[in-house]
Amino acid sequence: MSKIFVGVDLGGTNVKIACFSSRLELICKTSAATEANMGPKNVVDKIAKTVGKLLKDNGFSQKDITAIGIGTPGPAKYKEGVIIASPNLPLFKNVPIKKMLSRRLNAPAILENDANAACWGEYVLGAGRDIDDMVFFTLGTGIGGGIVCDGKLVRGSDGNGAELGHIIIYPGGRLCGCGQRGCVEAYASANSTAKRATEAIKAGAKSSLKKAMDKKGEITSRDVYEHLAAGDRLARKITDETAEALAIVCVNMLHTTEPKRIVFAGGMIAAGNVLLDRIKYFFNKHIWPLKKETVEICFATLGEDAGIIGAAALAKEIKKT
Amino acid sequence: MSKIFVGVDLGGTNVKIACFSSRLELICKTSAATEANMGPKNVVDKIAKTVGKLLKDNGFSQKDITAIGIGTPGPAKYKEGVIIASPNLPLFKNVPIKKMLSRRLNAPAILENDANAACWGEYVLGAGRDIDDMVFFTLGTGIGGGIVCDGKLVRGSDGNGAELGHIIIYPGGRLCGCGQRGCVEAYASANSTAKRATEAIKAGAKSSLKKAMDKKGEITSRDVYEHLAAGDRLARKITDETAEALAIVCVNMLHTTEPKRIVFAGGMIAAGNVLLDRIKYFFNKHIWPLKKETVEICFATLGEDAGIIGAAALAKEIKKT
Repeated sequence: MSKIFVGVDLGGTNVKIACFSSRLELICKTSAATEANMGPKNVVDKIAKTVGKLLKDNGFSQKDITAIGIGTPGPAKYKEGVIIASPNLPLFKNVPIKKMLSRRLNAPAILENDANAACWGEYVLGAGRDIDDMVFFTLGTGIGGGIVCDGKLVRGSDGNGAELGHIIIYPGGRLCGCGQRGCVEAYASANSTAKRATEAIKAGAKSSLKKAMDKKGEITSRDVYEHLAAGDRLARKITDETAEALAIVCVNMLHTTEPKRIVFAGGMIAAGNVLLDRIKYFFNKHIWPLKKETVEICFATLGEDAGIIGAAALAKEIKKT
Repeated sequence: MSKIFVGVDLGGTNVKIACFSSRLELICKTSAATEANMGPKNVVDKIAKTVGKLLKDNGFSQKDITAIGIGTPGPAKYKEGVIIASPNLPLFKNVPIKKMLSRRLNAPAILENDANAACWGEYVLGAGRDIDDMVFFTLGTGIGGGIVCDGKLVRGSDGNGAELGHIIIYPGGRLCGCGQRGCVEAYASANSTAKRATEAIKAGAKSSLKKAMDKKGEITSRDVYEHLAAGDRLARKITDETAEALAIVCVNMLHTTEPKRIVFAGGMIAAGNVLLDRIKYFFNKHIWPLKKETVEICFATLGEDAGIIGAAALAKEIKKT
């Protein structure tokens, strides 16, 4: 019998599934449409069947599963393994997914916030593999976060720690999807980047982005970075706002858990070094001159696999009872 | 032989020393002028002699000391036990105080940031004694901080974590003593409270505080709170600015380590419930409406003893080698 650890990254659109050895070597992986509209029971059934097929195709059986890790967007009762509700999984209300999947696959399971799982993946095998203290941001539609302190994932008193996208950096500022004003997510997510550019163009700012907007009816954060690379001034201004917001939150995290490394992941890092360099520039502008800070600000290295790797790595930590 | 744990709170003006049982019951305590201008060697000598006398007066001897905890302002190399430099201890440059005191008293010692030590004291015996996740602010001349995550003190990758007074809440805002702009310390410390009131009066604001200023040449945060109690409108405005700054940092800490309780300590809490109520008011104004947050915002309960209690409690954690 082999020892297989299964990592599941359950998103609103796709579910990613992978099998790892006890040394976290990737054995096999796959991805499928979540089809969340089928409801929780059918989604769990589909995940279980997909895992089964994946194992079989690679010469294993369900009996080889040692434990399962599941990453999912919040809010959830992670300890209990219950998804409370999720904007992207509308039929999932108080779903005890940990228990459901554990029963179907006859192995213990653990539920974790998807950003925390990705953070843990980067910590164990990626950008944080050689350090003990790390802060992680995933820059996508929204901004997710994760914190590792002295080698341990910070879960918070109620399992909802490290909601770093909702740190307020401009009190009274832009309205965030969460209802707060001035969150870093309202300035530095892919959505906000596109939104701020759109607003500026509508307000009459001169930019090569206008043509893209007229053509497609909307612009994305990707457009902003493409036009930035081509030298557009508005794209530069929008990117600087993004970078400065992220830099301020880097300063704040340094003064909070003092990470050795701050790691950015998610679709937005496709912007490349131009974004990273501006974050570092603004970090140096805002940080105190009291002492030389040695924190490294960098990009993640595992790409989209961070979530499944982290989920499997967390499964490895399930205590045998 | 008894098991005595010594707590030392080394400040620029006074050094507090106390002896505790292994159950952290206070056996005896004293306080003396630090006389930092005598230099590190003489200060250590004085501390050692004071400990010796304190023990003797209470029927113990130096042999009864199991371990010593020392709290001191940063920056320091806490692991190594070396004070790098301190504005309030000007002759202390790269002083290996842990080793020095350990040798003089023939017992192992531990060095910790004074705010962290006070945080740990409140966590072990005070406002945080029944929880696992706590955030701590000490509102004095400056603002110090401490974080307990899942029962462990957050020290950071280089021992300088939880510098919570230097979280930026108003980018580009008031200049802080640390060189950054917009730190919470620049809005909510005792110094800043007095400074903002002074500026407002000089700018012509009508206030009963003006008389106090004309009489004494300056005003303190205590004056602000006294005039607030007497109904002065400017004092109210200044207090609201203080409370809102603290509330924003509470929101941010909730989204970071998600504490069960946020505890305020230090001279400023003499302002009483009027300050606490306004912090809670602004917290509710800034926090998301997504879910009901159960974090408690409260005052510390140990008063000035938190530092020596925490130092002794940390001494209890020294691993025997």
